[in-house]
Amino acid sequence: MCWMCVLFLSAIALQPALEAVRAYREKHAAQLLRQFVELLRIPNVSGDTDNIRRNAEALRDALAQRGVDARLLELEGAAPLVFGELKAPGATRTLGVYAHYDGQPVSPDEWAQSPWAPTLYTATIEAGGKPRALPAEGETLDPEWRLYARSAADDKAPILAALAALDALRDAGAALTSHVKFLFEGEEEAGSPHLKQYLEANRALLDVDVWIFCDGPAHQSGRNQLVFGARGIAGLDLTVYGAKRSLHSGHYGGWAPNPALLLSNLLASMKDERGGVKVQRFYDSCTPLTPTERAALAAMPPIDDDLKRELGLLYSEGGGAPYAERMMAPTLNILGISCGAVGQAARNVIPDTARATIDLRLVPGNDPDDLLDYVESHVRTRGFFIVRAEPDLMIRRVQARIAKVTRRAGYPAARTSMDLPIVREIIAAAEQANGSPLVLNPTLGGSLPLHLFTEQLGKPVVIAPIANHDNNQHAANENLRLGALWYGIDLIAALLTLPAEPGRP
Amino acid sequence: MCWMCVLFLSAIALQPALEAVRAYREKHAAQLLRQFVELLRIPNVSGDTDNIRRNAEALRDALAQRGVDARLLELEGAAPLVFGELKAPGATRTLGVYAHYDGQPVSPDEWAQSPWAPTLYTATIEAGGKPRALPAEGETLDPEWRLYARSAADDKAPILAALAALDALRDAGAALTSHVKFLFEGEEEAGSPHLKQYLEANRALLDVDVWIFCDGPAHQSGRNQLVFGARGIAGLDLTVYGAKRSLHSGHYGGWAPNPALLLSNLLASMKDERGGVKVQRFYDSCTPLTPTERAALAAMPPIDDDLKRELGLLYSEGGGAPYAERMMAPTLNILGISCGAVGQAARNVIPDTARATIDLRLVPGNDPDDLLDYVESHVRTRGFFIVRAEPDLMIRRVQARIAKVTRRAGYPAARTSMDLPIVREIIAAAEQANGSPLVLNPTLGGSLPLHLFTEQLGKPVVIAPIANHDNNQHAANENLRLGALWYGIDLIAALLTLPAEPGRP
Repeated sequence: MCWMCVLFLSAIALQPALEAVRAYREKHAAQLLRQFVELLRIPNVSGDTDNIRRNAEALRDALAQRGVDARLLELEGAAPLVFGELKAPGATRTLGVYAHYDGQPVSPDEWAQSPWAPTLYTATIEAGGKPRALPAEGETLDPEWRLYARSAADDKAPILAALAALDALRDAGAALTSHVKFLFEGEEEAGSPHLKQYLEANRALLDVDVWIFCDGPAHQSGRNQLVFGARGIAGLDLTVYGAKRSLHSGHYGGWAPNPALLLSNLLASMKDERGGVKVQRFYDSCTPLTPTERAALAAMPPIDDDLKRELGLLYSEGGGAPYAERMMAPTLNILGISCGAVGQAARNVIPDTARATIDLRLVPGNDPDDLLDYVESHVRTRGFFIVRAEPDLMIRRVQARIAKVTRRAGYPAARTSMDLPIVREIIAAAEQANGSPLVLNPTLGGSLPLHLFTEQLGKPVVIAPIANHDNNQHAANENLRLGALWYGIDLIAALLTLPAEPGRP
Repeated sequence: MCWMCVLFLSAIALQPALEAVRAYREKHAAQLLRQFVELLRIPNVSGDTDNIRRNAEALRDALAQRGVDARLLELEGAAPLVFGELKAPGATRTLGVYAHYDGQPVSPDEWAQSPWAPTLYTATIEAGGKPRALPAEGETLDPEWRLYARSAADDKAPILAALAALDALRDAGAALTSHVKFLFEGEEEAGSPHLKQYLEANRALLDVDVWIFCDGPAHQSGRNQLVFGARGIAGLDLTVYGAKRSLHSGHYGGWAPNPALLLSNLLASMKDERGGVKVQRFYDSCTPLTPTERAALAAMPPIDDDLKRELGLLYSEGGGAPYAERMMAPTLNILGISCGAVGQAARNVIPDTARATIDLRLVPGNDPDDLLDYVESHVRTRGFFIVRAEPDLMIRRVQARIAKVTRRAGYPAARTSMDLPIVREIIAAAEQANGSPLVLNPTLGGSLPLHLFTEQLGKPVVIAPIANHDNNQHAANENLRLGALWYGIDLIAALLTLPAEPGRP
């Protein structure tokens, strides 16, 4: 038996444990923040193999230092999965705690500082926050301070919270009431291309009773939430063609077809003025909502007006339907368009190609490949011949309009029933950590590879986000509100000390 | 009297002079090519002040070495104009020779080699041409070889041709039959922002009887041409807005308006399926063609089928109207679109802005500001509120759709009558240089600041292009066919030795 478990055997009741955890993290706040900064200093863009491995090894070692039986699971060509297991003597239930240590690509020149130079601000930059030194030991930390760095929110925050929760519980002498398995993924932002294979190869190792998915942001109302599903994802890269080379816009303007115009027409044809997707059959396969889900939706705090005010918007897609309702539907978005150059860099040319990248978000019932098929059918109905590689002159001379389509890896949506007993226990514990009722949200708008757990492993998943909703997730100047980190520590501590199962000592 | 003029006094008849020029440039071909390479090595992007001045000084010195009274004309904040004057004793007529020494911006990673490292190829890169060493003195040069460099075609080729023509005429002992004034501009690719002011400030100095504009490409049939006008130009940068910051495409997809979609809709609304501009009043102010211009158009060689085959196109804008006819109409083109990122660089965000740069080409009768007004009116009819600076939250909260419009400097079109006596003489001399009939083209599709000469100085302008039509002008891998350079030398020599005016010795 490990030394941690010996400590944990001196169990105390839930509420005092949480109080002790709070006292611990308040006392050690500056030190926890420093640990977090060290973790964020390691670049973690999906696909940056060497740095991804540095992250994985640092996390394995951090778990091991806390008595967790930790190791890296490996697959050829894949980022390592950090796996750790901690047994709770006498426990009959196993919790799985998932987070991911990789982050989205960055455009460094859009950041206030390097994405890998974590910087503490006194508030958000937008609200006039100023950079400040990391606090000294014993200094009082304002929960409104923000730590700016790639993955400060998405998704290293819950990892630091888990490490801190273990430290705090040990310090409090509080016993775990469930076995726990940690799973930190390293390619979630790349669409989790190997997670399915990892889960298949480690089915027994990864058997738990419920997965706690620590990812995603707080509810946009600012209140913390639990979420019971996530949208699926798919996408495609689209290139349309003009002449086989760029042409002088004077000498050919009015004669040569312009791929920017072709692409604009094609993209404009995909959605109506209200944001409805005009692709045939796009909405046909959606699973209807259950009465419980409808009730949960109705009870969610309204956020549309505040969101619009904050974001400088006068309207939203969907013709005024509330935000929460819009997340229950699949959607199509343009992530980017690239053609020629603009502004100072613009040249007097008719570009030879125009490119767009499109993102689909799916709900239960939607098959990613089916929806991509429908989008491709739509492209064809607009007169385009679809190719998978750069078209040569032979093809150009027989096809008037050509679109190259490259599909992007994706996965389906998933939702867990809010009525399962273990789910109800988790809700109760999380509300204790939060100190007030949580928003109970049937689905996250974003995508997580939940389906692998709900379908492949056949286990329920509850998403327990800790990041503030205005964290600039996936964009420049990603940041975490310190108060969110403190909640995360309390939350994980509360889950690790759930009341024992009925009928158990 | 300068030593050059003394030499030129031993006049010989035109035809033998041209033959002597040809013999000279064949004998010195390798040396001329080396001179050209040296000239092209000097970077010349408009606005690169130091290098622009290096170009200007090199050209002033090159003219002076050939006995031309050469100097730089200067204006505060403007690129220098290279001006040179050579008197022909007994002549009563003055020719102006215009070219420009600046070039379009470059995207170096799209080039086969550095744009400023001129490289000789055995054919076009597309046709499998390979780089080869510059030829040794006395080696036979294939006229099909191509010299790749920024401005090899546009527009340093005629400058080298003029220098070589002076050398060849001197070597032949051939006298100039007209005074000649050289004018090499340094900011044509930036829209000639100071040319008007230069011409106003130097009206007497720049008084000539006819301007020969050495710019633009050969006719697309491959035949050399003379051109009697050029389209005008105007443009605008357009930015449309989504939320005030980029948003996660999962958490906000289906709810937040996407500026890429707004921009696509707006751009798609500007032209119909046949490429007709749908902006109200866009075509209303066009001056009708004269009978002479109609006849010239009808006599032009058909090029559409060959062009389409070469460019890999199955159709053209205008519903099948011939290329030459399309150049007689104004047009609107998208030079570029930029929004978010695509392909590997794409991030899962709904971008906060989408930008496009639009280029207008104008014909006689069109006022640039009027046409920009019409485009802005069109933007307004699509529901956008136009701003001139980044919109703040105050504006965002009262205007649902916002477009920032920045107008790009431009100028009107111009056309010279083909029936003027001096114009007919130029046609005859140029056809001698060419050795066969030229294409007589009422207008160039591209834009040149001809209106300043035709309207401000009140003098006719004939455009005498020398560059091959497939020179990748303004784009990557710009190149000049060597045969085009030889034609250019012959052409300028022929113009400098036009028959003397009737009634003169």
